[in-house]
Amino acid sequence: MELIIYLAGEIHSNWRQTIKEQANSLPFHLNFVGPMENHERSDNIGEEILGNQPNTIFKDDAASAMNNLRTQVLMQKSDVVIALFGEKYKQWNTAMDASTAITLNKPLILVRPEKLHHALKELSRKANVTVETTEQALQVISYIFEEE
Amino acid sequence: MELIIYLAGEIHSNWRQTIKEQANSLPFHLNFVGPMENHERSDNIGEEILGNQPNTIFKDDAASAMNNLRTQVLMQKSDVVIALFGEKYKQWNTAMDASTAITLNKPLILVRPEKLHHALKELSRKANVTVETTEQALQVISYIFEEE
Amino acid sequence: MELIIYLAGEIHSNWRQTIKEQANSLPFHLNFVGPMENHERSDNIGEEILGNQPNTIFKDDAASAMNNLRTQVLMQKSDVVIALFGEKYKQWNTAMDASTAITLNKPLILVRPEKLHHALKELSRKANVTVETTEQALQVISYIFEEE
Amino acid sequence: MELIIYLAGEIHSNWRQTIKEQANSLPFHLNFVGPMENHERSDNIGEEILGNQPNTIFKDDAASAMNNLRTQVLMQKSDVVIALFGEKYKQWNTAMDASTAITLNKPLILVRPEKLHHALKELSRKANVTVETTEQALQVISYIFEEE
Amino acid sequence: MELIIYLAGEIHSNWRQTIKEQANSLPFHLNFVGPMENHERSDNIGEEILGNQPNTIFKDDAASAMNNLRTQVLMQKSDVVIALFGEKYKQWNTAMDASTAITLNKPLILVRPEKLHHALKELSRKANVTVETTEQALQVISYIFEEE
Amino acid sequence: MELIIYLAGEIHSNWRQTIKEQANSLPFHLNFVGPMENHERSDNIGEEILGNQPNTIFKDDAASAMNNLRTQVLMQKSDVVIALFGEKYKQWNTAMDASTAITLNKPLILVRPEKLHHALKELSRKANVTVETTEQALQVISYIFEEE
Amino acid sequence: MELIIYLAGEIHSNWRQTIKEQANSLPFHLNFVGPMENHERSDNIGEEILGNQPNTIFKDDAASAMNNLRTQVLMQKSDVVIALFGEKYKQWNTAMDASTAITLNKPLILVRPEKLHHALKELSRKANVTVETTEQALQVISYIFEEE
Amino acid sequence: MELIIYLAGEIHSNWRQTIKEQANSLPFHLNFVGPMENHERSDNIGEEILGNQPNTIFKDDAASAMNNLRTQVLMQKSDVVIALFGEKYKQWNTAMDASTAITLNKPLILVRPEKLHHALKELSRKANVTVETTEQALQVISYIFEEE
Repeated sequence: MELIIYLAGEIHSNWRQTIKEQANSLPFHLNFVGPMENHERSDNIGEEILGNQPNTIFKDDAASAMNNLRTQVLMQKSDVVIALFGEKYKQWNTAMDASTAITLNKPLILVRPEKLHHALKELSRKANVTVETTEQALQVISYIFEEE
Repeated sequence: MELIIYLAGEIHSNWRQTIKEQANSLPFHLNFVGPMENHERSDNIGEEILGNQPNTIFKDDAASAMNNLRTQVLMQKSDVVIALFGEKYKQWNTAMDASTAITLNKPLILVRPEKLHHALKELSRKANVTVETTEQALQVISYIFEEE
Repeated sequence: MELIIYLAGEIHSNWRQTIKEQANSLPFHLNFVGPMENHERSDNIGEEILGNQPNTIFKDDAASAMNNLRTQVLMQKSDVVIALFGEKYKQWNTAMDASTAITLNKPLILVRPEKLHHALKELSRKANVTVETTEQALQVISYIFEEE
Repeated sequence: MELIIYLAGEIHSNWRQTIKEQANSLPFHLNFVGPMENHERSDNIGEEILGNQPNTIFKDDAASAMNNLRTQVLMQKSDVVIALFGEKYKQWNTAMDASTAITLNKPLILVRPEKLHHALKELSRKANVTVETTEQALQVISYIFEEE
Repeated sequence: MELIIYLAGEIHSNWRQTIKEQANSLPFHLNFVGPMENHERSDNIGEEILGNQPNTIFKDDAASAMNNLRTQVLMQKSDVVIALFGEKYKQWNTAMDASTAITLNKPLILVRPEKLHHALKELSRKANVTVETTEQALQVISYIFEEE
Repeated sequence: MELIIYLAGEIHSNWRQTIKEQANSLPFHLNFVGPMENHERSDNIGEEILGNQPNTIFKDDAASAMNNLRTQVLMQKSDVVIALFGEKYKQWNTAMDASTAITLNKPLILVRPEKLHHALKELSRKANVTVETTEQALQVISYIFEEE
Repeated sequence: MELIIYLAGEIHSNWRQTIKEQANSLPFHLNFVGPMENHERSDNIGEEILGNQPNTIFKDDAASAMNNLRTQVLMQKSDVVIALFGEKYKQWNTAMDASTAITLNKPLILVRPEKLHHALKELSRKANVTVETTEQALQVISYIFEEE
Repeated sequence: MELIIYLAGEIHSNWRQTIKEQANSLPFHLNFVGPMENHERSDNIGEEILGNQPNTIFKDDAASAMNNLRTQVLMQKSDVVIALFGEKYKQWNTAMDASTAITLNKPLILVRPEKLHHALKELSRKANVTVETTEQALQVISYIFEEE
């Protein structure tokens, strides 16, 4: 039994690379998917495909259409969603993707520093599990496979 | 035909009072529902009902359970969701509620100042309509009822 | 038991007015809802609420957001959908609304002149009933209420 | 991870052959499915299986039953739907299939020449992405797989 | 709290009239709905609305479109379905309506003479309750309202 | 806006009577529904309607069919489910009804003495809110209606 | 792409063997599943597993529980359902399985002799396709795979 | 065709080991999944991953979050659920998991000693099949694969 894990969260740090490396030492294989991590390309993908847009609002609108399609395809194929909040940025996409996962009945693991607990308390209460580090998130995934 | 409108968004300003007053001049009746607007009570409702909790994390957890139940009951009864983002605060609950509305196939009107467009571009693209003011949001609702 | 009937179809002719008058002679009350019938306003509603858009593509995009929200709210409240195709115009919205109704398990009555049968054969096969006139559509609705 | 792509749209031109050839140069494999492209056979399939029908209306009805079953099976197995509108023909089936895809939560890429934007504005607004060429549609699919 | 009861089953005997009279003595009101009970009209309704059809197969096809639309509208509005099988006739519609009710999560009461148990054993096992008389079916409905 | 509250739980004590009296002092009206509270009748309802059964297994099977139908009808009409566990009895029906409520997306308030927490920990974690008394459960319901 | 085909219908004749042989000559592989075809074993399976039951009613009830579980598992795994009605027997299970397939959005091919059309007219109208022979049913399946 | 079987029930005895050994003699392969069977670890998993909790209530809450995520992932991947009740313990998790399976339309086989029938009568009536031993449960699974 293989699991597909969607990694929702900011694309400014390299936390996805970190969790993939941490997962290498597990005795089973995980397939990680997620958004485009090249931030500049994520912002420009609309104009890259559709050409110049009239202003930045419409440039954003075009890019987000591509990003949403990518997320919809990959999240529908995933078995578990891990959503990570860092201390910087608004990260509304992370909240949006986490909430979509819950409503679609996809199990959700929330990763956030303890100091963000108050701002994330309603989302945390809806998540299956809330942890503080990606190592802990992988421990939760491991527990699905362990027999004793 | 009466509509129930859920007002998602920050509870620091009095924007809900404003939109209710603006709606008074419409030729039809709207029923507005939403979260507890008394911020302090919203934070304390867990301990108010369950008694003191071991620390602030668990106080938050208890409060958010009550807040989530309230939102679930009221959003399930609503016909349209209006989600307003202001320039301050993280507002992850607003993003969470807006995303829940979309996934539940509840029509969503997003209200945000233009300067927030970039941070909200993916959510905006999923919303039915994005506007900048509550007057505009009410114009959209009015349009449902108008015949010419 | 009252029924709400959504009238999907072109907004160039006054067929909705006709069917409402025909329904006046029925021994029960029907509530008719549908899209904005003022064609010019339907095209301009985006700019009416959001202000001038950069070009006609974006003007159309803004208008259609408003029109789609209206349709979503009203179709979700309806018990039966009547979709009328005339001989002119592309009428892709009518096909789109009819298909949405079928997928949402809303009973669909298709009204079209016999000469359009070939072009509409797949949609006709999915509809509950296909007729040629609005009088016939009302006869189908009447049959729901009749006891002998 | 392999994706299945349903190609909705007219069967008069050879655009499906074109997009399949364009996809050959991609660094991943796509499985394309779609309707019967032999137009005459698509029209005759009812009588081919059920024998002569009383008139052309019933011949059409029989054929569309077969075509609808094929589309239902193949669309349910697909991960993304691409719907192409050309400048000729009514193409109500394309609108119907595109709308079914949206309601079933299948990601939809709409391909249409810019001049059709007005007639397709409501459908375009519901689609995940609207582009003008099949190359652009494939760029959107590619973006799902790209990592930087 | 009022309940709507859909009465599925044969239209050759007057069992619906009987159960309505039996229900008159209950201390609460039930709203009964069901198919067209005038058998001849049920068979002719297609031609009554659409005009003469080429042969009896197509006459039947037209009639069943009307009958199915009526059932779909009324069953979606009902809270409980009572399906009665008598000793005569094939009654495939009764089996079809009962099975639709189960799949739609509508509570189902099956009424059949004991001697039909073997032929109906799989359906009986899926029904909420199986009884032998309409009086018993009404007792089951009454039990929903009783407090002691 | 009125709410319907389903009261799941043991039928040996009179806790439902207590909560109804407590609710009388609230400034809004709640509609309480639930299972048959007359325990003996609940056990005998199968034979009361269907006559003597071959043994107690089949007597139980007949009774539970009636009880399940009642619960299905009433829970589908409810907005919130309150499930109470006492210290005695196995109360598997309470666990079953609570779990059904969660899966159907009905908000669930769990009432249990603190000493039962360990045995109910997984269910408690899935419930919206867990409290220890019926007064607290009513406080949670009240919070839905309160504005400050 | 492989398809799984559920064969619903009577278990008195060997029509499943026939259709499997006919399918051998197709240029693609079909996986056929269906109910237990050994009629005596199908009737006795309840007592085979659970031991003697008090009477034939309860023997039937036990057997149908096993038969329903088998059908539920296999139908959920299937892509298309073929339901065959012969001229003998009540065949209520066939009607039940066909109706379940439609409600679950499984494409349905109905096979019946023309003389049964009247009794099956409502079910036929809901099916995707109605044919008279198993060869024709396989032609419909073939059409899904054919490209010209 | 391979099936995945979720084994719900107590983790105090080694019944899962027994059923796996019994399944070794079957002529087809079954994939068994289920909860963590190491009882102590199941109780401690919350603190193992999240660190010490303020008291036993919160320790339980943390552990159950992990256990629920594991169950949700594994049950969503399963084709059949077997739920076993023994004579000891409250086993509310078993009732909860069984009820979740039913509501998710997963076929359910209930295993319980006959003396528990009364307490489990409503759940038994909702299950697809109720048996007394794991051998019987495997016979039911076998019956899905048998052809004569």
